[in-house]
Amino acid sequence: MFRLGFDVGGTNIAAGLVDESFRVTERLVRPFPKGENGEYFVSLLRQMAEQLCAQAGLEAGSLPQLGVALPGSLDASGQRVIHAHNLDFHDLPLGRMLRDKFPRSDIRLLNDGDAATEAELKAGALRGCRWGILLTLGTGVGGGLVCDGRLFRGGRGRGTEPGHMLLHKGGRLCTCGQRGCVEQYCSASALSRDGIGAAQAHPDSLLARLSGEQGQPMSARLVVDCARAGDETAKALFEQYVDELSSYLASLVDLLDPEVIALGGGLGQSGEFLCEPLRRLTAEKCFFHSCGLILPAQMGNDAGIIGAAWAEG
Amino acid sequence: MFRLGFDVGGTNIAAGLVDESFRVTERLVRPFPKGENGEYFVSLLRQMAEQLCAQAGLEAGSLPQLGVALPGSLDASGQRVIHAHNLDFHDLPLGRMLRDKFPRSDIRLLNDGDAATEAELKAGALRGCRWGILLTLGTGVGGGLVCDGRLFRGGRGRGTEPGHMLLHKGGRLCTCGQRGCVEQYCSASALSRDGIGAAQAHPDSLLARLSGEQGQPMSARLVVDCARAGDETAKALFEQYVDELSSYLASLVDLLDPEVIALGGGLGQSGEFLCEPLRRLTAEKCFFHSCGLILPAQMGNDAGIIGAAWAEG
Repeated sequence: MFRLGFDVGGTNIAAGLVDESFRVTERLVRPFPKGENGEYFVSLLRQMAEQLCAQAGLEAGSLPQLGVALPGSLDASGQRVIHAHNLDFHDLPLGRMLRDKFPRSDIRLLNDGDAATEAELKAGALRGCRWGILLTLGTGVGGGLVCDGRLFRGGRGRGTEPGHMLLHKGGRLCTCGQRGCVEQYCSASALSRDGIGAAQAHPDSLLARLSGEQGQPMSARLVVDCARAGDETAKALFEQYVDELSSYLASLVDLLDPEVIALGGGLGQSGEFLCEPLRRLTAEKCFFHSCGLILPAQMGNDAGIIGAAWAEG
Repeated sequence: MFRLGFDVGGTNIAAGLVDESFRVTERLVRPFPKGENGEYFVSLLRQMAEQLCAQAGLEAGSLPQLGVALPGSLDASGQRVIHAHNLDFHDLPLGRMLRDKFPRSDIRLLNDGDAATEAELKAGALRGCRWGILLTLGTGVGGGLVCDGRLFRGGRGRGTEPGHMLLHKGGRLCTCGQRGCVEQYCSASALSRDGIGAAQAHPDSLLARLSGEQGQPMSARLVVDCARAGDETAKALFEQYVDELSSYLASLVDLLDPEVIALGGGLGQSGEFLCEPLRRLTAEKCFFHSCGLILPAQMGNDAGIIGAAWAEG
């Protein structure tokens, strides 16, 4: 039994057929031109579904379930997009529009952080968890919660926005309009931005040399690589980053004390170089001086497709 | 059918028989002398149970369930006290000790914040909630969570410590050893402490006059009363307090978006004077600019007894 998952980003749509072992057996990526409307979007999804099913020798209309992971918020029914700013979708009845195109399939819409969490729960770092958290440390900080063994869809149906919790009251201005949000300190973008400042202040550092003369773009990855290589400037930045992130995790532990916190996004791939100091500091800072597992997410770039395809109702 | 609940504080033990409508029909308070041990404690609970049952014409041994709300932390089995600092109980097998004294009763032990949350869920401000939060704004900030319609007992069994989440990274030193915890800004004690400083700085204010010459002790209640009366010094303090509390609530809304946040403890009794500006600011600060109900807790001083008596297994 295959299910179909779509992972919609700001510029591309990835689609995949996912088997019962949560493996993507066929995949396809198409650009989604900025400015196209919802009608074009659902037609494109139908075309992609047909192409994928043709590759696999299946009939697109016969798929029992398809899911769409979106960078945006849904209403409590999970059928209508409230806002997906990168797609310029606002108050769009996407569930109904998709049912018209796929009348024989169950349709699931979910936020991309929730889809990735569902994938980790089904087959990755959160498998078997009753209480767990996925945090994606990328351009922003997203993710989702597992509550009592199931994906949490929000107390009032809108999922969770863990990256907009407060870390520094009155701190850095966030894209959401508030100050001091977690994602201004704990995202990959935040580390990259701090890297630019540090490279200017320390032009002799490895970080400055690699990102300057040698022309690598500044990134969280470059800061991590330079810190691993022993560069003092990058090490100081990385320690600061781990301090911020551990303070945030300690707050989550004090509230929910999850069995597992899984870290995804670009920085999640830093492995033990990030997780080891993070575990130590989080345990030091939380109330009971003990926390559950902190480990890298496991589902990588397929998380959105898999989570969308196998989302629960 | 009656159940028996104990609410254990730092100096007194309150006990009550609670009927199926969650009403306390008989009650009793006894001092618990500092320095007494666990054996004395369970003997005292047995004596109190017998006296209450005698008052009601019941046999103490016949009660189907009794619960004890404690100011401390329990292990994941809910049978052993890890730490109850005010009682000087550490690693105490209280569940087993109580079963020896009450062999025919089911025994429930729970943290006092969790007991109060259970009471609000059963019969108060959280009744009918699937996702809700009780915060007790008193000496510290305690409380509990309702997840999927049931009392949350912690991802790893230790309940929740919402008052030790971070609000100001690097801020005021907390009793837990960390800096910037919520309870250093949002507890009644925090408002009272700020009241002392403000009264010294503004000796002509109503707050200073009432707390000075007229000999009322400084308290959160006095700050609220003076703010209601229009005293500028007290109003500024109270506005600052609402700003802090709303930032905290907005973080909780971004993570969990509960249907209801109920406010208990001394400050919860400030009613609309607190709740009205709090709702407005919380909605302004949270990601979706919309939040569930924010309202006073309803169970008052009986919450611990009722929640302990009717705790789920």
